[in-house]
Amino acid sequence: MLGICALPPALSRRGPLTSHGSGYTFATMYFASDNTSGLPAPILDAITRANDGYVPGYGTDPFMDALRDRIRTIFEAPEAEVMLVTTGTAANALALATLCPPWGAIYCHGLAHIEVDECGAPEFYTGGAKLVHVGGADGKIDAGALGDMLARSGRGVVHSVQPAALSLTNLSECGTRYAAQEIADRAWIALDHGLRVHLDGARFANALVAEGCTPAELSWRAGVDVLVLGGTKCGLMGVEAVIFFDPAPYWEAQLRRKRAGHLWSKHRFLSAQMLAWLEDDLWLGLARHANAMAARLEAGLEGRLMFPRGGNMLFARLPRATHDALQAAGAQYFLWPDHQDDLAEVSVRLVTSWSTQPQDVDRFLDLV
Amino acid sequence: MLGICALPPALSRRGPLTSHGSGYTFATMYFASDNTSGLPAPILDAITRANDGYVPGYGTDPFMDALRDRIRTIFEAPEAEVMLVTTGTAANALALATLCPPWGAIYCHGLAHIEVDECGAPEFYTGGAKLVHVGGADGKIDAGALGDMLARSGRGVVHSVQPAALSLTNLSECGTRYAAQEIADRAWIALDHGLRVHLDGARFANALVAEGCTPAELSWRAGVDVLVLGGTKCGLMGVEAVIFFDPAPYWEAQLRRKRAGHLWSKHRFLSAQMLAWLEDDLWLGLARHANAMAARLEAGLEGRLMFPRGGNMLFARLPRATHDALQAAGAQYFLWPDHQDDLAEVSVRLVTSWSTQPQDVDRFLDLV
Amino acid sequence: MLGICALPPALSRRGPLTSHGSGYTFATMYFASDNTSGLPAPILDAITRANDGYVPGYGTDPFMDALRDRIRTIFEAPEAEVMLVTTGTAANALALATLCPPWGAIYCHGLAHIEVDECGAPEFYTGGAKLVHVGGADGKIDAGALGDMLARSGRGVVHSVQPAALSLTNLSECGTRYAAQEIADRAWIALDHGLRVHLDGARFANALVAEGCTPAELSWRAGVDVLVLGGTKCGLMGVEAVIFFDPAPYWEAQLRRKRAGHLWSKHRFLSAQMLAWLEDDLWLGLARHANAMAARLEAGLEGRLMFPRGGNMLFARLPRATHDALQAAGAQYFLWPDHQDDLAEVSVRLVTSWSTQPQDVDRFLDLV
Amino acid sequence: MLGICALPPALSRRGPLTSHGSGYTFATMYFASDNTSGLPAPILDAITRANDGYVPGYGTDPFMDALRDRIRTIFEAPEAEVMLVTTGTAANALALATLCPPWGAIYCHGLAHIEVDECGAPEFYTGGAKLVHVGGADGKIDAGALGDMLARSGRGVVHSVQPAALSLTNLSECGTRYAAQEIADRAWIALDHGLRVHLDGARFANALVAEGCTPAELSWRAGVDVLVLGGTKCGLMGVEAVIFFDPAPYWEAQLRRKRAGHLWSKHRFLSAQMLAWLEDDLWLGLARHANAMAARLEAGLEGRLMFPRGGNMLFARLPRATHDALQAAGAQYFLWPDHQDDLAEVSVRLVTSWSTQPQDVDRFLDLV
Repeated sequence: MLGICALPPALSRRGPLTSHGSGYTFATMYFASDNTSGLPAPILDAITRANDGYVPGYGTDPFMDALRDRIRTIFEAPEAEVMLVTTGTAANALALATLCPPWGAIYCHGLAHIEVDECGAPEFYTGGAKLVHVGGADGKIDAGALGDMLARSGRGVVHSVQPAALSLTNLSECGTRYAAQEIADRAWIALDHGLRVHLDGARFANALVAEGCTPAELSWRAGVDVLVLGGTKCGLMGVEAVIFFDPAPYWEAQLRRKRAGHLWSKHRFLSAQMLAWLEDDLWLGLARHANAMAARLEAGLEGRLMFPRGGNMLFARLPRATHDALQAAGAQYFLWPDHQDDLAEVSVRLVTSWSTQPQDVDRFLDLV
Repeated sequence: MLGICALPPALSRRGPLTSHGSGYTFATMYFASDNTSGLPAPILDAITRANDGYVPGYGTDPFMDALRDRIRTIFEAPEAEVMLVTTGTAANALALATLCPPWGAIYCHGLAHIEVDECGAPEFYTGGAKLVHVGGADGKIDAGALGDMLARSGRGVVHSVQPAALSLTNLSECGTRYAAQEIADRAWIALDHGLRVHLDGARFANALVAEGCTPAELSWRAGVDVLVLGGTKCGLMGVEAVIFFDPAPYWEAQLRRKRAGHLWSKHRFLSAQMLAWLEDDLWLGLARHANAMAARLEAGLEGRLMFPRGGNMLFARLPRATHDALQAAGAQYFLWPDHQDDLAEVSVRLVTSWSTQPQDVDRFLDLV
Repeated sequence: MLGICALPPALSRRGPLTSHGSGYTFATMYFASDNTSGLPAPILDAITRANDGYVPGYGTDPFMDALRDRIRTIFEAPEAEVMLVTTGTAANALALATLCPPWGAIYCHGLAHIEVDECGAPEFYTGGAKLVHVGGADGKIDAGALGDMLARSGRGVVHSVQPAALSLTNLSECGTRYAAQEIADRAWIALDHGLRVHLDGARFANALVAEGCTPAELSWRAGVDVLVLGGTKCGLMGVEAVIFFDPAPYWEAQLRRKRAGHLWSKHRFLSAQMLAWLEDDLWLGLARHANAMAARLEAGLEGRLMFPRGGNMLFARLPRATHDALQAAGAQYFLWPDHQDDLAEVSVRLVTSWSTQPQDVDRFLDLV
Repeated sequence: MLGICALPPALSRRGPLTSHGSGYTFATMYFASDNTSGLPAPILDAITRANDGYVPGYGTDPFMDALRDRIRTIFEAPEAEVMLVTTGTAANALALATLCPPWGAIYCHGLAHIEVDECGAPEFYTGGAKLVHVGGADGKIDAGALGDMLARSGRGVVHSVQPAALSLTNLSECGTRYAAQEIADRAWIALDHGLRVHLDGARFANALVAEGCTPAELSWRAGVDVLVLGGTKCGLMGVEAVIFFDPAPYWEAQLRRKRAGHLWSKHRFLSAQMLAWLEDDLWLGLARHANAMAARLEAGLEGRLMFPRGGNMLFARLPRATHDALQAAGAQYFLWPDHQDDLAEVSVRLVTSWSTQPQDVDRFLDLV
């Protein structure tokens, strides 16, 4: 199964995805991904401020101390440990490696980013663990299916990989959302079978503001052991926080990070960014804006949505003629791989971000 | 998915599988696995003969030279290289590691031994490759499904693991058999997509005599690059030959074997066994006997078989009362995990071997 | 053997290394490491400029295209391929993984960063290769010792790891420098024995301007297959270019990068920085300044140097009283681990950078 | 550094090592290695007896139960767990993988089998740990050197691999022996620094009978956590017991064994051999004989020995003319790699075994 960001270049160059505009930048109607946006001004400012003078490296900078405090406060988790890396793939794989031994199994949805978009990073970091697919509609793991699989998991049988971790994604790869209770339902099943729980939160901020609960409710209170709090898709340059609500594996995680080449010497530039992002609830504001832009899109695409919208991402079926017109007008988005050969309709993925402008949404909808 | 040999001990101790006899040995009606049999007399003799005097180690023994020649002759493959290890898991994993890089994907059936019964050995040996399940009835990969999956495989996309190998099993885990043409059909699809082909032949001898073709026809002529020729289930103590029809990866394979601790210093005891097995077609005779015993079983289980019998293994649905009577009489076999909780019927796996006696089959059938 | 950046915190907190000033930033006499400096203005500007608009991710940005061209021109290597990551550890380990199989040996100096300061990253990325120490004075590999070791290396012997790569570091960890001819001498020995050559160029810019030759002369013309061109210690936020003069392993390298979580979605921020650094020879100017500051230090430390200065780093023996006075005045530097318990003298490492000010050097020397 | 069994074939074929007889077997004066001997009659008998009937596989056989009991008794360790594999390389690497994480360091002598003769098996099994050389005369680790290195080991420093295990070898690769107190001296230093202790006992039996102490005194009472009790070099076909005096890692070890393809289906043939070997102190008698033959050799080589003889292996300097005469007479032994180019003298390794005959020793000495 291909993930969205793994769409083969041959396909993406097959006309539809090419901008007709003047180049890469300044495209309007840019819904390809939230990681194609830049940084909001406060983050750029934070980088500039952090640039002054000499600062010790490798995570011993004062910005990191402040960030750790801030995250502990926001998540009501005074014992939590925090580690920064620069990509979601690294964050997920490092987190999973602390939860799952080489002979372990990670239960995840078949569409999960860790399965389809990371070129085997979890296998690399864990030393060869196995990702086991759990079914479920709309990109969300079905609790019943999870329970059934764990009941037949081979725990204690030397011939079988040993169940070790459950990995959830919120927002999911289909743009849908787990409510706090839904996270908890799956986490308790996992915990009952001795698994620990990882949450890929590349779009945690978008899920959070949409759900309207607290960060703790959507993470450790719902049974999550390790959260990847994604900053990159939500306005940072390349900053992801791995939050260990159980601090036990933190030292191991630091060694794994260093060993993987993910410990920055000029670490202050990572921590200062995320600190600014979490100050004054900037992160929530950015996520709310992205979600609002997606809601605006959704309103204009009534009846065409493939999955319930959970935040800032939606999938829609469009007539091919509409698609052609959008492309001609310079709209940017990815096609859902499974349906790309349909003659009458195409399935498109539309992602909004902190920088999406209402007029771009409206122009897109006018063309639809 | 649990494999047969991974049946949880808790279940297997739940009554049905316990012998009522005096212990482990001398059980009659022993259909648990072909690897619970011992060695036929000519193999024991070969061990004794090989014991004389001093012999250089690590595969430089004269028995190995003769064995290599014998295999090249039998397979009509004068360029082939041969490497011995002592378990099928090691043989498969070493073979796959030479075909698939750490970032590669191995396409296999979801019931394949490499997926369900090797505790992640392929992932360990390859350095973290991914096993991708291809569907198909009766434990055999469906050619159409394989083609469809490879067409969407993500080759050339940096976010995706790269398709590298196809792994087939003959006999399959369901006891069914690929004809030479069926192997070829799947291999050509794989080769068209740049994959190389591995054949897990733990029961290759049983498949071969049932199919009635030549060893070459069922292996390299059908597109197989590396064959694991299994001896352990067919009368040897613990000897599997990895046959590289393309000798290019042989040196790498030798280093991988040593590095994995599978290069025997007293290697003569492995090569002498397999040499005796292949002399005078002993291996074919042993396999014919095992298959004949399975055919005798099959004849008495008409209408109850779950899959077409390919060789020396069959699966049948039995009324629970029959099952209870068999257990009470000391019959030994495994239950098929997926149906173990059915109240009225159980699914059983029955495996015959070179040492199975007709009277044991008949006694079993009398009870049925 | 501990590397400098691995100095135990317990030791570094033992008085001497603590600043007496107001905190981390704005320390004068900051000679701890060149990676504790920030970014020069043109690099900050490049980040700001790259921030505009939407840009495709994962290395497909136009800045990367321009950077690749620029590097090919500077290095007179039109076929070279270039890959960016954010740390030297990642760059080195990824480079080595393309040169050395899991069963291979990497020949390096016992003080090399890859051996003492990367927490086993080369072992992780290669899948378990072995680093073999080659002796030599002043942190530089002795050509004769290298030849002798390779003559007894175990090539072709299945019990031995197989010699695969030579890794050199320029500037070395002792701050010394290989001339182009010295690189070549060692590279030819390696090539004669079938090894490929990696150059850890974390301070390549400093070596280059000190040596006064062309980039090509100090890399591929001297036999280097893969160069890690370090930006981080020379003015960038966290950008290292892995330059493959032989482009053959480039695709594999890209997959390894992704799989390791080092492929940035907002990649433009890496390529734009390095592009600005290489434009108008900014990189050479920054390195010349750092070297000049080190020369100024050297002039004042006559008779105390432990190794010949190669660029922007030097090691000196100081009376303990001098050391105490420097510490009291707020000077920042690391102690050389091996001599930390000497009563009368301490060994100090002093590193200058693009941001070192002459007055800081002079103040330091006044105290000496 | 090359190990003995890694002597390049090119060298070993350079005349001296070639038998002048009619082939491999029945060579007299065969001192190449103790692993070139076959099996004594009681072991062959045990194999034949174990062959009867059907026996459950994968270590659940009754021979294994008896063997476990026997080892617990012999070692006075009622809690110990035991696991069988077929090679010393596998046994060592599996043991070390349970003691050392991927980011760990294993302290060993530079001549250790795990360093020079296993093609990187410890690195493979641990997932990339680092072997750190500790010096010491006669192939034995110097306690002072060990203490000094551990005092500067980088524990707690994220840039350094973390000290995890000490690996000792008894008999050492130089044929010397650690007394129980010498083991303990080194083990306590290791334990003081938080390391765990592995003992490579490929020739433990030879060391034991030479030392004249109890098995417990030479293992867990001296601080050993995991012992590899070697059977292969002492009369078995290919059987090594990994004995976990601390049973905590036993389950993990079993999974690692299976995953590495070292769990035998026909496991009875391994356990029955070792059971017979330990019954009636056969193992001690075989080792005593081998040692006695080495003592006989030693007596005739007075003044020529390179290291004090610890058991059944010795190294001697011989005039080249003597060496040539021995070779001409068909004597079999390896040359010590470091001195092979000396013109006047050669260094030879002589190993005796359970099957060495006094007349072969005497004939050898006559030629000397």
